[in-house]
Amino acid sequence: MQHVLHDFINEHKAILQTEMDKKLQHLDIPATLKEAMLYSLQAGGKRLRPVLLIASYKMYQQDTLPVMNSAIALEMIHTYSLIHDDLPAMDDDDYRRGKLTNHKAFDEATAILAGDALLTYSFELIANDSHILDTHKVELIKELSNASGPEGMVGGQFLDLDAENKQVSIHELENIHHLKTGRLLTFAIKAGALIGQATPSEINHLEQFAYYLGLIFQIQDDILDVIGDAERMGKPVGSDSELQKSTYPNLLGLDGAKEFKQTYIKKAKAALDKANGLGTMLEYIVDYISQRDH
Amino acid sequence: MQHVLHDFINEHKAILQTEMDKKLQHLDIPATLKEAMLYSLQAGGKRLRPVLLIASYKMYQQDTLPVMNSAIALEMIHTYSLIHDDLPAMDDDDYRRGKLTNHKAFDEATAILAGDALLTYSFELIANDSHILDTHKVELIKELSNASGPEGMVGGQFLDLDAENKQVSIHELENIHHLKTGRLLTFAIKAGALIGQATPSEINHLEQFAYYLGLIFQIQDDILDVIGDAERMGKPVGSDSELQKSTYPNLLGLDGAKEFKQTYIKKAKAALDKANGLGTMLEYIVDYISQRDH
Repeated sequence: MQHVLHDFINEHKAILQTEMDKKLQHLDIPATLKEAMLYSLQAGGKRLRPVLLIASYKMYQQDTLPVMNSAIALEMIHTYSLIHDDLPAMDDDDYRRGKLTNHKAFDEATAILAGDALLTYSFELIANDSHILDTHKVELIKELSNASGPEGMVGGQFLDLDAENKQVSIHELENIHHLKTGRLLTFAIKAGALIGQATPSEINHLEQFAYYLGLIFQIQDDILDVIGDAERMGKPVGSDSELQKSTYPNLLGLDGAKEFKQTYIKKAKAALDKANGLGTMLEYIVDYISQRDH
Repeated sequence: MQHVLHDFINEHKAILQTEMDKKLQHLDIPATLKEAMLYSLQAGGKRLRPVLLIASYKMYQQDTLPVMNSAIALEMIHTYSLIHDDLPAMDDDDYRRGKLTNHKAFDEATAILAGDALLTYSFELIANDSHILDTHKVELIKELSNASGPEGMVGGQFLDLDAENKQVSIHELENIHHLKTGRLLTFAIKAGALIGQATPSEINHLEQFAYYLGLIFQIQDDILDVIGDAERMGKPVGSDSELQKSTYPNLLGLDGAKEFKQTYIKKAKAALDKANGLGTMLEYIVDYISQRDH
């Protein structure tokens, strides 16, 4: 089934890129600021979050027009977080996905403002969406702001910086990842189900599913950092471990990390089953994420 | 009438501070992140934006519960912009309102994240407001994100940095100020009128009024920078001119700037008259802003 997922991802990646470019081209803003926003949005990546949102929605509805703005908003928020995380005062990274980071390609002030711009504009995109009801817009903005704000992603990034150069427990590690990565993945799946008009019970099970999916994603990230191939990843392998960052392999050993991953795959699929989602694109995405090599 | 306005401002400043503190205390977030957010929110200032929002609303309704979240969200967005503007990569300021800037009191990473957190949380506050209709929430978020995003405040800050050390025309200068300051002042007045259920014609005239009010605010800021008193302002006097920044007095001379201000005061009051707003708190605010000494 991997090629079905492959086609699904490629098809929607292309649509997303076209739509994102179009939205930005329409903005009446300073040219360099637009260039900086586009630079990071065009850096590619897996587009995992918007693809998850669309896949979740497609369990219930077919016409994707009503999810496009939300999917783009989500990718913009993810992109803003990468731009800010890469800044010298934060993770201080020069490269991301094999390209110069935003503040290296432009400058720090531009990178900070491009991030602020993407974050702010993402809420405008949802509020301006002409394909969904006001009540859905409000629900989406409530969920997205909470998932990406101080109680979500921003809080996770703060804890992550705070955890550098000190040993944290596996419980603390999972909390950091849940906030930093898991909350937005959960939003993706919940938003798709919400716009697709899933039942409250289906949404509950999908939230469970998303929780485990987030942990699988992070464990695989950590495993790849140990065994991955530098060129494929676009960043130096072993960089997390050199910084004495807390990772699953550091805390549990490589085999221990792989065992944890298997357990979470089982739990994710059990939750998906309860939402009647086995055999859908979401199941293939679990396998894709847990086996990906970059 | 100055003491009536004085009482109005003081009364609402106190309410706003209490409400902002309460909102933040309820957040389940890392202690230092919360401290950094509170630090800048408690740094005081004129609270001009939320006070304008409330004053505009009070032209039409009395009970202020329906505007509190929007007023707080607006002040949080203003505060985030100050935190990010003060960063070393931006204006590189060590002091603001006589206190250390956020990145000096904490560190740069914390300041970036505290800003991101305030920005994101402000949209959550409006989306979660239980006192207003979904249709109003959507309209407010649309206006606020546009006013503070790349087509508004963020775009203005980008142009402002870009204009440093070069001469710009009076037209370019007004555009920068309109984006950087005017758009949020306009939001304040429009949001109050919207929640207060003003007519579309009243809202139109108030937008005109807000446009001139923003320019008056900026001219007075520039004038104070030339003649102001260092201790009162909490920052070194003449700092803008030393940096060769474009200001009204630099472009028009001190007398020319004062003349421009008088012209804009007349236009602001004419627009306010058409919205039936003469004799209200908004008129006193024009006088307050154009005569303020800090």
